Parts: sequence; structure tokens; C-alpha cells
Amino acid sequence: MKKFEEKTYHTETIYTGKIVQLDIDSVTLPDGNTSKRELIKHPGAVAVIALTDEGKLVLVEQYRKPMEKSMVEIPAGKLEPNESPESCALRELEEETGYTSDHLEKVTSFYTSPGFADEIVHLYFTDQLKKLEEGPAGDEDEFVELLELTLEEAEQMEKDERIHDAKTAYALLYWKLRGAK
Amino acid sequence: MKKFEEKTYHTETIYTGKIVQLDIDSVTLPDGNTSKRELIKHPGAVAVIALTDEGKLVLVEQYRKPMEKSMVEIPAGKLEPNESPESCALRELEEETGYTSDHLEKVTSFYTSPGFADEIVHLYFTDQLKKLEEGPAGDEDEFVELLELTLEEAEQMEKDERIHDAKTAYALLYWKLRGAK
Repeated sequence: MKKFEEKTYHTETIYTGKIVQLDIDSVTLPDGNTSKRELIKHPGAVAVIALTDEGKLVLVEQYRKPMEKSMVEIPAGKLEPNESPESCALRELEEETGYTSDHLEKVTSFYTSPGFADEIVHLYFTDQLKKLEEGPAGDEDEFVELLELTLEEAEQMEKDERIHDAKTAYALLYWKLRGAK
Repeated sequence: MKKFEEKTYHTETIYTGKIVQLDIDSVTLPDGNTSKRELIKHPGAVAVIALTDEGKLVLVEQYRKPMEKSMVEIPAGKLEPNESPESCALRELEEETGYTSDHLEKVTSFYTSPGFADEIVHLYFTDQLKKLEEGPAGDEDEFVELLELTLEEAEQMEKDERIHDAKTAYALLYWKLRGAK
């Protein structure tokens, strides 16, 4: 769907980093006027709603610099070049939690900030986890702590704003609708 | 919570725009090593889950440049300086849909992209809408079309990826849990 399309007549790349690229597009609007759009390009990400055999949700706590606070989120991470979302989901699950699974079910995908960024999150579900013998591998310059919570505990953490991001908020509703133990 | 805190020893502002600011923070990690963080600063936003008297969800379709496609989303918009989230929610509802309400209920708030951005969305619910006589006011350089959908229609649109963003995906689950008519 291209309704109300904004046609680009010039793109200026302001910055290309490890995670984001910032472009300013000059566009022609549907009424013929022109405007500028600030666009963050992002490689995309995955996240996993993972339930243990005890019916608990697997979460990771890490420091989130943009907010200057540590946050509790479902396991997630950025797509590497040429990596499929499903491979990435499995890799991030293993690296961050020390669990693996041979049964990842696609839930949905969504753009996180459609007004200014093209970041998409591909979301998976599994309730078939196996512990890796070697434990979580971790990732360079990532400091992460594992949590396993009941729905009630997770909802309390959401009230306390320790769970405070879109994909994890979505995951809690999804879990509830699917029927938490 | 400051667990695994990353202490900033230098900030470089790369770009300051109308919507986003891009900073590169140089940080000291918990293990004493250093790293850089790409940070998008955003003023924050609101969104409204608004149900008509017929029990339909109010949505708006608009072109989203980062994805180069038009998307159907719940009414939303950026906070103006010194504007409260609730005032902003009411203003965006009126501007984009031509409805108003004297009963906006806070649902939750969440950060959309905690890995690289500080954008927060404050989410409201109302099923008490009144039509403004003058209709939607619109906003400079915004082209928006109004839709009112049943849950079934909205879920089909999500399957077709015309609804394809985090806040609207969240809204559909929330509506379902609350009990759609």
C-alpha cells in the first residue's frame, strides 16, 4: 500500500554506526509541498517468548543506556547480516539464557517506532526448552542476568516499571491470552 | 535500578532534528572496559485505543516513510514541549480522528526500542467518544485517513501486514483481553 506516498528527491546520510544509520530524506508530499523526514535505519531484531517446563517466562535484565536504567525484557537481539530471523532467535535465546529449543513458533512481527525508524521485531514463542550444558555464552560487552517469573510476578514487575518495553508488554498479554499456567 | 550501570565519560551530539537527536555516548562498562552507545533521543509519544459506540476500533492510515508503505495504526503522536501525556492524547485523538472524549483511561506506558532509543509511548483507552462538529483538524504535512474496524477486521489487517506496528499490535491484544463486542 502506497496511499499518501511521499516521494524522495534527496537523501542525506548523516551518520552510519554499528547499530543505526541516520538519513534525512527530502520528500514531496501528496499535495505537492515538500518536507524532510528524519529516518533511523536499523537491521531489525528478534525476541522470544520462552516458557520453562514449570510454566515460567524467561527474562533477562540488562542496563539500557538510552533510559539510564536496567530493564527486564524477554530475550532479544539484532539480526546479523544475512541471518534469518529464526536462526537469530535461536542464537539470542542460547546466548542470553542458556536455553535452546527445536521448536520456535512465529508469533508476529511489528515495527517498533514507525514514525522515525524502520526497526522490525520478529517475535517467536516456545514452551519447549532444553538447558544447554555449557550455560549462556553471553556476548561481548553485554552484561545480562537471567530471571524466570510467573505471570503474576511479571505483571508486578510491569507495574513497578522494571518491565517497561513494548515487546515484553506485548509478550505478557500474549501469554495471558494463550493461558498462563 | 542501576544494575550493570554503564557510566558515561563523554557525549558527542551528532545531530539535532525536529523529531530525533543522535548522541554517541562513550561509556565505562561494569568490567572496566569501554564501549560506545548510539542513542536516539525522542520527546516521547502517546497513543489511544478508542472504541466507538458500535464497539469498533478507531484507526488511522498514513504513509510511513521509514518503511516506504502506508500503515494502519491507532491514533498517536509526539509530545509537545511541556505537554502532559493526557493532554497530548486528547489533542491527537481530536486532530486525527475528529472524536473527543472526557474519559481517557491510562493503560500503560512502554519504551519502544530500548536498545537504542528513549522513545516512550503512553497508552490510553476510551470507549466514550463524542464526534467533534468540525471534524478532524489534521496537522501540517500529515495526510491521514480514518477507519473504524471490528476486531475480526483488524486482525485480518494485521495478518495482511497493513497493521504492523508494536503499539497497534498491543492494542489488539488488549482489546481482545478486555472483551471485544
